[in-house]
Amino acid sequence: MASRQIPVHISQQFDKELNDLRANVLTMGGLVEDHLNRALTALSNEDFEAAEYVATHDYKVNAFEVEIDEECSRILLKRQPAAGDLRLVLAVSKTITDLERVGDEVEKVGRMALDLMGSDSPKSYYVGILAMGFHVKKMLHDVLDAFARMDSQAAFQVAQQDPQVDEENDAIMRHLITYMMEDPRSISQVLNAVLAVRAFERIGDHANNIGEYIIYFVEGKDVRHTSLQDIEQELKLSSKRT
Amino acid sequence: MASRQIPVHISQQFDKELNDLRANVLTMGGLVEDHLNRALTALSNEDFEAAEYVATHDYKVNAFEVEIDEECSRILLKRQPAAGDLRLVLAVSKTITDLERVGDEVEKVGRMALDLMGSDSPKSYYVGILAMGFHVKKMLHDVLDAFARMDSQAAFQVAQQDPQVDEENDAIMRHLITYMMEDPRSISQVLNAVLAVRAFERIGDHANNIGEYIIYFVEGKDVRHTSLQDIEQELKLSSKRT
Repeated sequence: MASRQIPVHISQQFDKELNDLRANVLTMGGLVEDHLNRALTALSNEDFEAAEYVATHDYKVNAFEVEIDEECSRILLKRQPAAGDLRLVLAVSKTITDLERVGDEVEKVGRMALDLMGSDSPKSYYVGILAMGFHVKKMLHDVLDAFARMDSQAAFQVAQQDPQVDEENDAIMRHLITYMMEDPRSISQVLNAVLAVRAFERIGDHANNIGEYIIYFVEGKDVRHTSLQDIEQELKLSSKRT
Repeated sequence: MASRQIPVHISQQFDKELNDLRANVLTMGGLVEDHLNRALTALSNEDFEAAEYVATHDYKVNAFEVEIDEECSRILLKRQPAAGDLRLVLAVSKTITDLERVGDEVEKVGRMALDLMGSDSPKSYYVGILAMGFHVKKMLHDVLDAFARMDSQAAFQVAQQDPQVDEENDAIMRHLITYMMEDPRSISQVLNAVLAVRAFERIGDHANNIGEYIIYFVEGKDVRHTSLQDIEQELKLSSKRT
């Protein structure tokens, strides 16, 4: 099965609770996406206000994590969910941990953007960083979209991009090393760029993790630490069964 | 209350399941600690075998994560735990995610150690990295010990070390930047050291997170994103209540 609707329960109230839970994850995801957009604007336009906003507003993301986790505990306690409902609550609980950590990485990018702006080192190495930033931004967007539709095929599409992000990362790192060697005075600044690249790589990893939780919920199978080929095979078998 | 025993249940089988769950987390934690020890040996003794072992054995840690998470789902489904039991299962589910990510960081350190060994750049910058590595190794050990005893005060002691790790990180980074500026040919190698330092910093963060889950289980209060002062206050109030 490629996507899954929340089953209708005898208790309409329980349905509402599960729907609200999903909606809250998407609101949290939207907030994290907004921060990532601002971080990219900060880097591309040297926008001081955007960078400062991102560096100081992560508390909003954190508050969502605590609130949604409380809601998960409350549902587990009150509803004692089984099967797909239990998997949904567990997938949500893991997803928000990854979203919170995306928030942490974006906050770091904001702080690095502030540091980079204060310097007069050449900015042409921004280009590669930004390309990677826009790539992981799209991954985050796509995986949240897959979450909204609980679409395991769309979640798998995101996971498939992980090797590509790794390649981009290696290419940019080589580029940044060349920069530092050519102009050793820029090392301290370029190191900020190195750490921004690492932060983007992490964001890609987290998007990948969220994709795996979606597949766990939809397919009932834990695909963490499973090769892309094996996941693809699993999804094919699953679509034949339905 | 500073520590908490698992309450005795009418079902001895359920008691056994919860005890096994905790024991499995400690076994997984012991494995991660073993890998971290090997990574530090690899760096301090230029021990190729230790580095290669660490760079290729993370799959063992991953397998534990999947197995323990399945056990958590099974207990939630079959036992529908309440209160402290539910908090225990949720704390375990979060703890193993952090342990798995410590495993990822240690694997990276192993790969970096392999890269560093292949080079002829000066090794004196190892000293600072190693000091930080031994510090976060102790944090991981202490937090696993706090988990074994479910001791929220001991968990808080670990969390208190986080600012110190950040300071160490900043000092080592300045040191490494100086190295790179003095010898630009070493940049590519020293960058491996920079990323090893980042990996150690992360391991400290994960130990801190695990400490917060222990406090959540013991005190019934989510202290993530709470200042050290506020957590300390909470623990003082709690110990007065008991």
